[in-house]
Amino acid sequence: MAQTDVEKQAPTSTWQVTKVSAEGTALGPDVLAREEPLEIRVNGQSIAVTMRTPGHDEELAAGFLWTERLIAQPSDLLSVGHCPGKSEEERDNIVLAYVNGVEDILGEGWQRNFQATSSCGICGKTSIEAVRQAADPIESDLNVAPEVLQRLPNSLRAAQATFERTGGLHAAGLYDAAGELLFLREDVGRHNAVDKLIGAALFRKMLPLEDRIVLVSGRAGFEIVQKCLLASVPVIAAVGAPSSLAVELAAASGMTLIGFLRDSSMNIYTGAERVTSQ
Amino acid sequence: MAQTDVEKQAPTSTWQVTKVSAEGTALGPDVLAREEPLEIRVNGQSIAVTMRTPGHDEELAAGFLWTERLIAQPSDLLSVGHCPGKSEEERDNIVLAYVNGVEDILGEGWQRNFQATSSCGICGKTSIEAVRQAADPIESDLNVAPEVLQRLPNSLRAAQATFERTGGLHAAGLYDAAGELLFLREDVGRHNAVDKLIGAALFRKMLPLEDRIVLVSGRAGFEIVQKCLLASVPVIAAVGAPSSLAVELAAASGMTLIGFLRDSSMNIYTGAERVTSQ
Repeated sequence: MAQTDVEKQAPTSTWQVTKVSAEGTALGPDVLAREEPLEIRVNGQSIAVTMRTPGHDEELAAGFLWTERLIAQPSDLLSVGHCPGKSEEERDNIVLAYVNGVEDILGEGWQRNFQATSSCGICGKTSIEAVRQAADPIESDLNVAPEVLQRLPNSLRAAQATFERTGGLHAAGLYDAAGELLFLREDVGRHNAVDKLIGAALFRKMLPLEDRIVLVSGRAGFEIVQKCLLASVPVIAAVGAPSSLAVELAAASGMTLIGFLRDSSMNIYTGAERVTSQ
Repeated sequence: MAQTDVEKQAPTSTWQVTKVSAEGTALGPDVLAREEPLEIRVNGQSIAVTMRTPGHDEELAAGFLWTERLIAQPSDLLSVGHCPGKSEEERDNIVLAYVNGVEDILGEGWQRNFQATSSCGICGKTSIEAVRQAADPIESDLNVAPEVLQRLPNSLRAAQATFERTGGLHAAGLYDAAGELLFLREDVGRHNAVDKLIGAALFRKMLPLEDRIVLVSGRAGFEIVQKCLLASVPVIAAVGAPSSLAVELAAASGMTLIGFLRDSSMNIYTGAERVTSQ
């Protein structure tokens, strides 16, 4: 039974594939990033289904609740854990959270909040306003040396070596100002990787992350910046490109946003004053 | 006014960035992939907000309605177009669709359908079953030569040269069996790029896509395979990795799924019988 549990929560699976190359065609195993739906229930009410890579599910749920403002302080999260249903599927793919003081939010039709806020006409500006109403601007006086930042992508890749063979997982890493990796999380969905990271920080009583750096392995869209803002992260770095709305939200919120981070170069889109040689 | 319209729908914008490199630090412009919310309303009811790259919004909405089974045949889509609201935001970021025979679906609480289907316990198997109930398995006798497939990534990259400079856009291309690019669509969201492609095919009366190939520039997750299945696409190729659930859905639906497509190699995960030298 323990064996089954491990398998169900494993982040990868194998599949027999036809490999075509210059040398010819051969059958062989390939390692796949696992993708399974996870349903998150708050006080018995289903509020979200996300396609995620199994593992760290409680962190994913906790991070999601935090970045969606369903919990305002860690003590609001009374409990979170897998559903003790009879079937394996129920146990593995449903997380039950019990949360303090959320009845009003859920009663109001939580899923419609975003659209209600933007009833004046939906656009990027309204989206930014909605997020800014939910989070204080960043006022961290964190300083990071460019040399420290440029070491992070190699550090992230080294730490995710086990999963890199699938080529199918996004990674998010939490670093301190000296560039030490505190922990990383991976997922087929980049927003899930960040939620897992924030959930892990919540469980370790590390929120708010006012003196931390988050590195994402891919691109940085609006949602990634939004989640980091809600966790008070002052510096976000991405190996890939940021989107226009990600940059605009970072600028409006006093965050440092870095894209195309390499071992000898980077683009600093906002908050360049935090990147200084020491 | 026309100028403003063009700008609002432009897929890119520019931002002044601090570029750090081995040569030093310099200020300069960078081209960003634009990301803006789009609200889709069906018969006056708001059914979705998606973060997308502006442009081809009507196709995005039409493709979304098709792949979510809110329209079963092209004639069900009575009209689709931008909201004629007074503000620019309303005009640019809301698409109004009028659809035949959808009242029952919307009345039933369309957004809850997925979860209702999986009340037996949510898991990948249930997700696949739900999609399979909505779409017939693929029975196309399309055959594609491996040499044809291996030319596609270069063709896609050449066609998206204008946008490649942002590094921030996913692309999806529709090809015929000879490897001719029919058209491509781009978006910050990979599912949006595929919805735009399917919407474009719908407007051109090309559905079902029984003898076509879809190539995506990144990874292939469950959602990408699901959307292609709903459009009857027999062959999906990805430059990146597929997820476990994407492979399982393709296998269950008689689709050919290819990953890590390069100019001299590829992995064929399912439906290898369609890939034959002719």
